[in-house]
Amino acid sequence: MTISESKDVIDEIFHPGSIAVIGARSNESLENDGWVSRLIDFGYSGKIFPINPKAGEIMGLKAYPNIKDVPGPVDLAIFNVPFRVSDQVMSDCASKGVKFVHVYTAGFSETGKPEGIRLQNEIERIAREAGIRVIGPNCMGLYYPQGGLTFGRFLSRKPGTVAFVSQSGASASRVVAQGNERGIYFSKVVSYGNAIDLDGTDFVEYLSTDPETRLITSYLEGVKDGRRYLKVLRECTERKPVIALKAGITEGGSRAAASHTAVLAGSEIIWEAFFRQTGVIRVDDLEELLDVAMAFIHLHRPAGRRVGIVGRGGGLGVVATDMCEKAGLKVPPFHPDTQTRLEQRIPDAGTSARNPVEPDKGLAAWAAFYEEGLKAIERDPGIDIILTHLGIDIYGGTGQRLNQSLDETISILLKLSKQLSKPLVIVLYAGGRAETINAVLQAQQKCLEAGIPVYPSVPSAAKALSRFIGYHEFLDRKASYSK
Amino acid sequence: MTISESKDVIDEIFHPGSIAVIGARSNESLENDGWVSRLIDFGYSGKIFPINPKAGEIMGLKAYPNIKDVPGPVDLAIFNVPFRVSDQVMSDCASKGVKFVHVYTAGFSETGKPEGIRLQNEIERIAREAGIRVIGPNCMGLYYPQGGLTFGRFLSRKPGTVAFVSQSGASASRVVAQGNERGIYFSKVVSYGNAIDLDGTDFVEYLSTDPETRLITSYLEGVKDGRRYLKVLRECTERKPVIALKAGITEGGSRAAASHTAVLAGSEIIWEAFFRQTGVIRVDDLEELLDVAMAFIHLHRPAGRRVGIVGRGGGLGVVATDMCEKAGLKVPPFHPDTQTRLEQRIPDAGTSARNPVEPDKGLAAWAAFYEEGLKAIERDPGIDIILTHLGIDIYGGTGQRLNQSLDETISILLKLSKQLSKPLVIVLYAGGRAETINAVLQAQQKCLEAGIPVYPSVPSAAKALSRFIGYHEFLDRKASYSK
Repeated sequence: MTISESKDVIDEIFHPGSIAVIGARSNESLENDGWVSRLIDFGYSGKIFPINPKAGEIMGLKAYPNIKDVPGPVDLAIFNVPFRVSDQVMSDCASKGVKFVHVYTAGFSETGKPEGIRLQNEIERIAREAGIRVIGPNCMGLYYPQGGLTFGRFLSRKPGTVAFVSQSGASASRVVAQGNERGIYFSKVVSYGNAIDLDGTDFVEYLSTDPETRLITSYLEGVKDGRRYLKVLRECTERKPVIALKAGITEGGSRAAASHTAVLAGSEIIWEAFFRQTGVIRVDDLEELLDVAMAFIHLHRPAGRRVGIVGRGGGLGVVATDMCEKAGLKVPPFHPDTQTRLEQRIPDAGTSARNPVEPDKGLAAWAAFYEEGLKAIERDPGIDIILTHLGIDIYGGTGQRLNQSLDETISILLKLSKQLSKPLVIVLYAGGRAETINAVLQAQQKCLEAGIPVYPSVPSAAKALSRFIGYHEFLDRKASYSK
Repeated sequence: MTISESKDVIDEIFHPGSIAVIGARSNESLENDGWVSRLIDFGYSGKIFPINPKAGEIMGLKAYPNIKDVPGPVDLAIFNVPFRVSDQVMSDCASKGVKFVHVYTAGFSETGKPEGIRLQNEIERIAREAGIRVIGPNCMGLYYPQGGLTFGRFLSRKPGTVAFVSQSGASASRVVAQGNERGIYFSKVVSYGNAIDLDGTDFVEYLSTDPETRLITSYLEGVKDGRRYLKVLRECTERKPVIALKAGITEGGSRAAASHTAVLAGSEIIWEAFFRQTGVIRVDDLEELLDVAMAFIHLHRPAGRRVGIVGRGGGLGVVATDMCEKAGLKVPPFHPDTQTRLEQRIPDAGTSARNPVEPDKGLAAWAAFYEEGLKAIERDPGIDIILTHLGIDIYGGTGQRLNQSLDETISILLKLSKQLSKPLVIVLYAGGRAETINAVLQAQQKCLEAGIPVYPSVPSAAKALSRFIGYHEFLDRKASYSK
């Protein structure tokens, strides 16, 4: 299998002209979610063939007792059947001449049981002999909003530029759903499970030249061919950034990965070297993956790692500074001119015109401060990035006051963000109160729509910034070596 | 000053018979929050004397132009005045024979400016000569719900057993407010700022024998007398656990601490040794401080560090396992008997009866599983703690279904928690959707009321458990040395 073949195959899989759902439930409806209803609901424009032994109609579509009964060609078949009949179903697909199969069904080699291993080997053999290309088994398959494909009915129909390649189905669901809430939209997502045929390497390789994808994110437990994965990722990061969570890295985690997707997870030392060599951005959990993605989506590269921090609460400023420096950023003293300019804006006590800056008074007074203060910080030649933490949980108040002062502050930040040439990052820590959380979610929405990245905490912002900058530094180092 | 004197002084400060608010605002009301209204609102039962040059009435109380005009004794005076007049006000307090002063006012040595430093030295001198004991300057002072004292009107009136000793006012506000939302209630809290007299060491020493306090938490930037702090903390941790966030630990953070509370923050190496020697539990931010506190409030000590993990989503289980092991816990394979018992409950594919366990189907099916499954895990001699992650963001659904299935699962967990002898910890990750977040907040409330600790993520739970166990291991080591 040459590289171009695999790429072409995957592009075809994302654009099937017809889809058969084998094992479509006869009681499917929009409320009673299933594979057929999701395709209809998501606006898939190709032909859909529900396959069910009792035939009849499913979601208003004619159902067939067997895929072999379908009139006309089937590009993609989704297996929603008990794993014990998967070999028979794969044989039927071979007879029918199905091109691609997504085996949603689980219960194969990941169980460690002889029956599961035998059946996985069997469907692999049948597919290979028939030339059927397979996603799975034991996976959620495809999410491609542009093409009407989805594995979850509540995911956004809005396409974006981020791809996610996931060995895990739950991770794929969480990343897309959570990403959508944080204003991150996806080009193409695949959950590929046990990967008896197409695996993470194939998908990343395809996405590395996919014009719809600007940023690749990934969850992986293990790879089949480490050497090829290294090569593909090394080339890919030159074209676009790749953010990856390598799971199954501890002793227990590696054992867990074996019983999840039946992989050998590999040692920490090997993976550490992998990340260093490829420039793939490593994250520890799915939230961090989205944090870093957010930086890539909204920010341009800052000139360096020096952060100007602004926020109410002296102690919170000290902790924020520690968090930034622990993450590999710098929080240096301001230039004397900046100091003077800020002191004109923050004349009174209890506050600091030094870095980290603490504006005086509550949220409303911040609004007034931000107008001039952030511009003063931006002019500082020793500052590359501005990070503001609002402390709404403490200073936001309740009821009308909360919404008013938050609205006022956010409006000014939105206005300012258009004027500032250095990256601006906002931390909207919400605390545990329902009212504040809901107000913060709304404020976050406004910022994201205006292209300002919003983080739930200073550590998450600081780590994301550091990794975002780290990718660019990697490219610089690579460029200087090759000179 | 001997140890017992300082302790007695602090106990008196927490129980003042009368309080003067110097600089009480004439337009104070319950809506227009201030120091006088807070005391009234919080049910403080002693005498309150508002001091305001215009006198008149404030919140229905007779106001006096100067503290010297107050008839009868004043135990505690709160300074809510511009820092420039603080020396005059302190002299007035000395004339009046005020015992204790809380200088809320800021603008002193933390500004680094000559005028601030001079005034701080001046109020320190006047207080010392007059024998006035001082909290502050530049701090929020006292929160003691049992005694009607508070620095924030929206904090809980319900007393608890956790103390918080904080150099930072914002940290004190955040920890109490956020703690309340997470079912953590406080015995005594103090924010002591620049500490010209009483400092963190004095307060911890007092709390170490305070019968109302079972657990001491602390935010500190620096201490005046390192040797004494070490001694006090070493003795304290033998009696009750201490959880501390040491801020200002990086280069920038240390500079920030200097301009916040005018302290020398000390190097990482020194503090690392301090934590190792004293058994004080170190945390990196305020959320972690509350995470660990929650473990101490609700859990008894497990026999060891071995965790049984249960939750839907194979990949999420792998990541959860990594997180637990990275935090210093173990996720071992189950005993074969446990495996067999679980397989009887989880017969079908796509799921795992191994550790981490993945029950089949959605939330409702979990409820059925938990009934028997958790008991099987509890019987395993190789498991010390049970951690469940519910993945409500992915599997919870929406609307009625979300609330129903969450209610059902939580009810069973509450019932089970009474039957299980091993610690049970629940992770309620809420994702970013307002509906799910609100449902999770309600479910969390129920669990906390039933005494089950709830964490927002697996890493936060794992770190808290590891630190909770670490404290007990420290005591074991110390006991074995002294034999």
